This record gives sequence, structure tokens and C-alpha cells, in this order.
Amino acid sequence: MKFTVIGGDMRMVSLAMALEEDGHEICTYALDNAPEGTVKCCGLTAKLASTGADCVILPLPVVNTRGKLNAPLSAFTHDPYELIKQLPDGCLICAGKPDEKLINLASKLPLELVDYFQREELVVLNALATAEGAISVLLRNSPITIWESRILIIGAGRIGKMLAERLRDLGAYVTVSARREADMANIRAMGCKALDTRKLMGELSEFDTVINTVPAMILDRPRLERLKRDALIIDLASNPGGTDFEAARELDLNTIWALGLPAETAPVTAGRIIKETVLNIINERQKTK
Amino acid sequence: MKFTVIGGDMRMVSLAMALEEDGHEICTYALDNAPEGTVKCCGLTAKLASTGADCVILPLPVVNTRGKLNAPLSAFTHDPYELIKQLPDGCLICAGKPDEKLINLASKLPLELVDYFQREELVVLNALATAEGAISVLLRNSPITIWESRILIIGAGRIGKMLAERLRDLGAYVTVSARREADMANIRAMGCKALDTRKLMGELSEFDTVINTVPAMILDRPRLERLKRDALIIDLASNPGGTDFEAARELDLNTIWALGLPAETAPVTAGRIIKETVLNIINERQKTK
Amino acid sequence: MKFTVIGGDMRMVSLAMALEEDGHEICTYALDNAPEGTVKCCGLTAKLASTGADCVILPLPVVNTRGKLNAPLSAFTHDPYELIKQLPDGCLICAGKPDEKLINLASKLPLELVDYFQREELVVLNALATAEGAISVLLRNSPITIWESRILIIGAGRIGKMLAERLRDLGAYVTVSARREADMANIRAMGCKALDTRKLMGELSEFDTVINTVPAMILDRPRLERLKRDALIIDLASNPGGTDFEAARELDLNTIWALGLPAETAPVTAGRIIKETVLNIINERQKTK
Amino acid sequence: MKFTVIGGDMRMVSLAMALEEDGHEICTYALDNAPEGTVKCCGLTAKLASTGADCVILPLPVVNTRGKLNAPLSAFTHDPYELIKQLPDGCLICAGKPDEKLINLASKLPLELVDYFQREELVVLNALATAEGAISVLLRNSPITIWESRILIIGAGRIGKMLAERLRDLGAYVTVSARREADMANIRAMGCKALDTRKLMGELSEFDTVINTVPAMILDRPRLERLKRDALIIDLASNPGGTDFEAARELDLNTIWALGLPAETAPVTAGRIIKETVLNIINERQKTK
Repeated sequence: MKFTVIGGDMRMVSLAMALEEDGHEICTYALDNAPEGTVKCCGLTAKLASTGADCVILPLPVVNTRGKLNAPLSAFTHDPYELIKQLPDGCLICAGKPDEKLINLASKLPLELVDYFQREELVVLNALATAEGAISVLLRNSPITIWESRILIIGAGRIGKMLAERLRDLGAYVTVSARREADMANIRAMGCKALDTRKLMGELSEFDTVINTVPAMILDRPRLERLKRDALIIDLASNPGGTDFEAARELDLNTIWALGLPAETAPVTAGRIIKETVLNIINERQKTK
Repeated sequence: MKFTVIGGDMRMVSLAMALEEDGHEICTYALDNAPEGTVKCCGLTAKLASTGADCVILPLPVVNTRGKLNAPLSAFTHDPYELIKQLPDGCLICAGKPDEKLINLASKLPLELVDYFQREELVVLNALATAEGAISVLLRNSPITIWESRILIIGAGRIGKMLAERLRDLGAYVTVSARREADMANIRAMGCKALDTRKLMGELSEFDTVINTVPAMILDRPRLERLKRDALIIDLASNPGGTDFEAARELDLNTIWALGLPAETAPVTAGRIIKETVLNIINERQKTK
Repeated sequence: MKFTVIGGDMRMVSLAMALEEDGHEICTYALDNAPEGTVKCCGLTAKLASTGADCVILPLPVVNTRGKLNAPLSAFTHDPYELIKQLPDGCLICAGKPDEKLINLASKLPLELVDYFQREELVVLNALATAEGAISVLLRNSPITIWESRILIIGAGRIGKMLAERLRDLGAYVTVSARREADMANIRAMGCKALDTRKLMGELSEFDTVINTVPAMILDRPRLERLKRDALIIDLASNPGGTDFEAARELDLNTIWALGLPAETAPVTAGRIIKETVLNIINERQKTK
Repeated sequence: MKFTVIGGDMRMVSLAMALEEDGHEICTYALDNAPEGTVKCCGLTAKLASTGADCVILPLPVVNTRGKLNAPLSAFTHDPYELIKQLPDGCLICAGKPDEKLINLASKLPLELVDYFQREELVVLNALATAEGAISVLLRNSPITIWESRILIIGAGRIGKMLAERLRDLGAYVTVSARREADMANIRAMGCKALDTRKLMGELSEFDTVINTVPAMILDRPRLERLKRDALIIDLASNPGGTDFEAARELDLNTIWALGLPAETAPVTAGRIIKETVLNIINERQKTK
């Protein structure tokens, strides 16, 4: 098959290389600044690069916060809405979290646009790679071992649970806070201590490390004030985060807003996960045809 | 508070004893054959036994396969539908998997009937105790260690996953079969090998032990024929099970239909789990009042 | 190669079958009551059975407590000292824990007698199989789950450590008692709580289960008196054990003296471990020649 | 008690602070450049700083490679042999890996000099902290997750085993190479694959990461040539290491010689471990008196 890989960070480079290793033909675009010896650009325009492609893969996310194509490895700025107009008819487009505008545009063109970030297998393995990335961030920023340290994980979603299991295995005393009784039961089943996220307050002073996974303002000033002065806070929640960063700064708390996991800590694995998901999408499409 | 505990197996005895230890007043009924020194019967009729009770707890399940009250520790046969008519007005009734008839009856009387088996926290911890029970069954029936043995778990539901994690920790080579890509991803995330349940066939000959958790005919004759002669089959699926038991017998395969877990392997813990769930139900009711 | 397997329990049967599967020629003796379809006797005397053998394997232990050959699967009684006199010259004899008399006899005959129970690899894997066997005994005899139960392991030797790791992984709160600071450190490194075996007393009342691995009188009457009435005691120490069994009986404590692990719980694996060790012995002998 | 803490890195700062938190009186020397707000220097000379001390703690190691006191947090250079002459009579001196010259000097003065690095509890917990540090180094330097990566650990000593268990728990396919059959058995008991260190060659091409723990030239040029081009090598062996670093550089292999673990990755925990060991030494001395 022929794939065109457009934009994105090192995950997309890894994805392109892994597809090539599998024997596929690869074209890239908007990866002109990728490290030497990895991928090579195959066309001066998206149109040229995607000619004859069976599948075009757009980055995760497709559009950055400034409304442009997410393409940190390109020397140029690209308009994602102009770009998809150049893609060939009948071509499958796999995109990570496309915005409304892009989805609408694709449906009118018409192009088949699939959001690979909605695939459960990607979400699960991405959560796992994120949990491991969080351990990397923790190890890098803490002067104590995970072993025998007291760690609070806020939120018992996928990342929270996977992180809890791993930190427990590394010998930490792990507490996880959640809201539902079912989650509390799951936390106990994992051998961790369960707390109610809504009632977190006095116990906060016990923890060496607090890792937030919930995208809501949990670590507000009153709670931050309860933490030990040398506690480490790692916030994994995407924008706007779950921490009052301003208050944390004033209280001189060591706070890390770890966005961009696992792209930063394990880009090759993260790229392979996207690759597998895209191949699953293609396989399922062929079966239903 | 005053609780009346009616019928059931050793789980209900454990539940009654645990409530008593917590300082509650306990009456039992239809537990007249419980082991000496555990609980004592408090009334000759359900009516007398439940007079003044804040909460009546019925067994899991309430009704046995013959349409009678599930009461293996009673010398008598009890009609569950007659029995609930004797319960006092305004009393909370916690019952395990009540049938339609009982639910309808309660709504007409009117009695507040809550199915504690629908509570997520019970389902989670019960699954855990079941997984551990399955390990007990496996250890008891296998001449080889779990360590370095090749085990297939069919189904990646709650029990399947909890069992997989534990067998992996005990050193087995664990394969889990599932159908959804998300489950496949979860299986890999746990460090186990994933297979597609629908395609199970040739690989079956590799396994020392096969544990089924899926309530559907998975282990049919063609599949059973692929198993090693000395393989052990443990079927955890409730009636009618997931194995062609007739074929298994003809093929002389060591097959165990392990129903009644965890009541049989860990009645005390199973009773405590019901106790905690009932107390959660009561607490939530008081809050919303 | 040709092996003669003499006496022993189901481990020796498993050992013989495994060697046969590997393509070796097998003769057995004093296994005349082994289950049908497993091994067949090849000679009416040890002499006949071992004619032409490259290696004779004697059971673990060779001699039973009555001074006879350990041969529970034979209808007859055999004298081990008479038996080895019948073995052919120049034949390697692998025996499990031969006594002084047998060693002396062999050196005079002369026969090359190797004690496979002195091999580290057997000791390690046997300890592992014993630890798993102890879990089987525990699960079979306890009405509570290992998960969330409080377990004390006395002794941090091989079996104690392997058992502690596994029970921890199954979700127990594991405490291990030891005497040396190095062991205390190892226990903490495993994520378990460490106590000093010599000072065990008041804390004993916390435990649901106590597992002794130390071959010395640890669980004497004063300590037994501190245990909960419904505590379970499992003693893994070989004769005379580490428990005052008389006192335990008087105190009505549920006490299990689990001798014969792993022969009883995992004979096939235990037999394979002996097989691998015997093959290692043979390989090393050939290299040094 | 009064402690004087002399020289060393952040571990000694952590040690001093932890002793102070325990209520002890602390003096420091040769820590004049420690971060503000941590410890304060108490004397202009070692003599003044140690006056009245019950115990003087010297760093790990005491002497650096240039024959001077190991004191990276001091602005000055200190002669360890001159320094101990200034210590008060009858004072216990706890030192990490003192050299021959220092030991001889102390015995003549006479001063009681104890090497805390010979204490098993320190060695065990230090190995654990080192293993965790190695995971930190690995996570920081690898573009793939530990999960599903293929890792070879050379050597099954304390660090090798602890590292293997943790990487296995994080989902890696872990192989450990060793030389003794007993270690091979232990590796299998841990659920890892065992290889013979002496025969390592062709399999080397399978691994994403190779971690050496053996202080001998294991990763020589012929072996390095077998590694994948994008393999990561982490050498934990102290000077001169176990890798032909010259060859690794020529082969353009990503090689990290991770000396100084756990001082670098977890100085606070490493300091606490020394503190506990020193307190154990003091306790045992008082008992025997």
C-alpha cells in the first residue's frame, strides 16, 4: 500500500518509518525538518505528496492551538483546511482529533475522514504509554525513590489506574482518589487505598507526590496549602489543567504540568500505536466491503 | 440499627456476624441450620424475625432454581413471595438478584426493594473474590504449578482480567481471548498475549489450562478436540456454562464447572462485601433524604 | 541414554515420563503401583532393571523414616542399602538426600553417587513450587480471600521470600519476620513489613494467617495464645515443625502442618525439576571429562 | 545525640537533615556549599565541628579518585588523613568504603572506625535505589516504552535481580544473563528468560536495551557489533565498566555509563538509607556494651 504521512511530531516520523519497515511505500509532507536519516519529503505540495496514496495520515491533533496544521517538524506554516482540499478523491484520511470544521469540510468534499483517536485500542495503549511517561517525569524530578514514597493519584480513569498499578509494583504506597463507589472498589481490588476526590483535604499533607489526571480544578489553593512544602505535583490534565498553578507558584510548590505525554517520553512507541490503529481501521474497512 | 438476615449460605452467616461485630442488632431467619456458635434464629416466622428491623437482607440469589427461597442452611422450605408479604412496612429490603415476580410484588405492597447485586462495588469485589476462587480451584486440580504453565483465559471481562493479572503475577504464561480491539489492547497492556475468541482453534493445543468466563458455547466439540489430553478445563460461566460438557466427558478431558464461587471458596469475604454494599446503600439513602 | 528410575512418589513417575518424552529409554523399579498408563516396571529386581543404565535415579528422599526405600508406589518393601549393591559398576547414581550410610556404601562399592538435592537450581525451583503449594493449602483452608487478609510469614529464607512476593501480588498485607538486618532490608525492598522473629508477641493478634517456614520452635504456647481465635496456622517446617501442635490443639486453633510440598500439590512440576537437575549433572560431568 | 556530618554529596545533606528532624544535634563540615536552607556549617575546622560529637559520619566513598576527601559540596580541598587526626578520642566514626590507609590510621590513633558500606542492610537498599535509578536513566534516554520492549540485563546479582523484577512489572520482556545454574533458576523463578553470560552472542541482536551490571569486560567489540543500531546500552558497572566504550562510540551505539546511582537520582532516599544504617550500628554497639 501507499501511505502519505503529513505533519506532526516524532510520533509521525516513527509511524512513517514503521510503515516503511513493513514494506509499504511512504510519502511524507510537512516533515521537512525531521532528523536526517529518518524520513524524506516526497513532494513540494500536499497534492503531489498524496498522489496515488491509499491512505493519508494526519497528525494528533491535526490542528494546533493557533488553528494551523500541527507540524512542529516543518519549517513552514500549513493551513489544515486548505491542505485537505488537495487530497485525492476516494482516499482514506486518518486524522487524530480533527476539529468540527475539518470534519464538515471532509464530508462535503467528499473525503472519508476517520478519527483514529476515537479508537479504543489507541486510547488504551496511549494511556499506558502516558502512565509510563508520568513515571519518567516523576523519576526525573524527585530526589526520593518511588519505593516507599507516598503517592496520591487523583482520578481512577484509564491513566490513573495504569499509573497506580505501576507505582504500586515499584513499591510506593499508592492512594487513588475517585468519586464513584465502583472506582473505589476497583482501587481496593488493585491493592491501593481509596479516597473520595470531593473530600480531599487533611490527608493531603501525607503525600510526597500528587499526580492529577482529572481535567477539572481539583488542586485549588486551599488544597495546595495542605501539601508538604517539599511535595511534588505532576499535573497530567490537558489544558487548562487541574491545578491552580498561580497559587502553586506562590506557595513555592514544585509543580510540573506534564503535557505532551507520551509524544515527548516515548515517541517511537506512540507512533507505532497510531500505526497499528490505522492498520486496524484499514482492515475493518476491507472486511465490511 | 436493627438488621434481619434471611436465608442464604455461609455468606449470609458471615454478613450477620460482621454486622453484629459492628454493634448492630441482628435477627436471622431461615438460617436455623447454621453452624453452632455463629448466628441464632430470632423468630419462628419471618414476620416475628423482622419486627422493628430497619433493614431486611435477603440472600444472593433470593430465589433458587426451584422457585423457593435460597436457604441451604435452613431445615425448611420457604416461599419467597409469601415471605416478603410478612415484612414490616417502610422497611428497606436489600435482595440479591430478585426475580421479576418479587420486584413486582414489592412494588405493590409497597416495600422498598433494592437489588444489591446491581451495585458496581459489589460486582467488582465479587469478581475479585471469584478470580481468587478460580485460582483455588486451579491449584487444587492441577498436578503442575501455575508458574511456567500455559493458561488460556476466555473472555476479558472483569473476572477474566483480574484472573489474568493474578496468574501472570504467579508466573504463568497467560493468554486471554477477547473480541473487541479495545480488550485486545487492554490484554497487551497487562503483559498478556491476546487472541480473538472467534478464531480460537489451532492454538488451543498449546495450553495446559483453559479457563472460560464467557456465558456462551465457546468450548464446543471441535475446539475440545484440539486440547491436549491432559489439559485442565475450568468453566466459570453460570448455567448453562460455556463448555460442551458431554463432549468433554467423551474426550476424557478433566473438566470442572466451578459454579458457586466465591461463596464456596471465600464465604466470609463474600459476606463482608455484601455487608459493605448494604451499608453503602443505607448511607446513600440517608444522604438523599 | 538409558535411565532407571527407582522408587519414590508421583514426582518420580512424572520424571520418568518426561525423560521418555525427551526420547530416552526408561526402566523403572519399585514403582509397580504407579497409576495405569504412566510407567511400566521393567524388571523383577533392581539389578535387572538397571542393567545397561547410564544413570539410575533414586527418590527424594531415598530413605524413609523407617529406614526403608522411600517407595509409596510399590507394593513391596525395599532395603535401600541392599538395593544399591545391585546397581551396575560405573553407573551414575543420582539420589535425593542420601543418608550417611548410603554415601559410605556407595564410596566403597565403588559407585558414583550424586545428591541432586544439594544442587542450587533444584533447591531454588523446589522452593518456588513449595511456595505455590503453600498458597494452595492456604486457599483450600481459609474462608477469607488472600486479598486484603493480614498474613505473617515467619522466616525470610527462599520459601519465605517467594511466598511473600506471591501473597503480596495477590493483594494480602504481608508481614515477614526475620532476624538479620539484611533480611529486614530485603523484606522492605519487597514492599512487605518486617518484624523481628525473636520479638514476635503482641502483634500476633493482628494476623488472619500465620505461615511458619523456620525449623525451630517459634510458635510456642505463649505466642499461640496471642493469635486470633479464627486465625489459620500453616507450618511448612519439616519434622519436628515449628509449632507447639499440642498447645494449638488445646487452644482450638486451625493448624495445618503442610509437609510433603510440593510433591503433593504439584508432583508433575516437581518431577520435571528433578529431571532438569539430573540432566544438568550429566552435562557438567561430560564437560569435565 | 550529637552527630557531625563531614563532606559528601546531597546524600550527606539529606542524612544531616533527617537526623536533625529526628531531634539530634547536627554539626557539618566540608558541606559549606550545600544549597541554602539545608544545613549550616558549624565550625571552621573539622576539630571544632566534631567537638563533643557522639558520632562522626564520613561520606561514601570517603576518599575520591584524587586521594582527597570526597566533598563536592565544599569550596575547599580536604585531606582525609589529616582530617581524621582532628577527630575527638572515643568517638565513633562511620565511613563509607574507607581505604586501607584510613583504616590503618584510625586503628593507630586509636579511633573506632566502622565501614557502613559493609552493612548488608545498606547494600540491599542501596541496590534497590540503584535499580530504580537505572529505570530513571532508561526512561530518560529511550524513545520507546519499557512496556513491550526487549531488555537484557547482564548479571543476576542484587541490582540485576531487583531491576529485572521491576522491568518485568513494567511490562518489558526481560532476559537476564548469569553464569551459575542457581542464578538461572532464580531468573526463571522470577518469570524472566535466562541466558549464559559467557555464551552471549547471536541473541544480542534481539534487544532494544542492554543493561550491564557486571564489573568485567562483557560488552566487548564482537558483542557490540551484534547489537541493533538503535539499541540503548546502560552500563552500571563501576570503573572501568563492562563495556568497550571506545568500540561503542565507533559503532555509534547509544551508550550511557551510569555511575553515581543512586546519589544522582535519589539522593534523599540514599541519605536516609545511610542514616538508618548508622543508627543500626549505634544501636548494636549499645546492646553489646
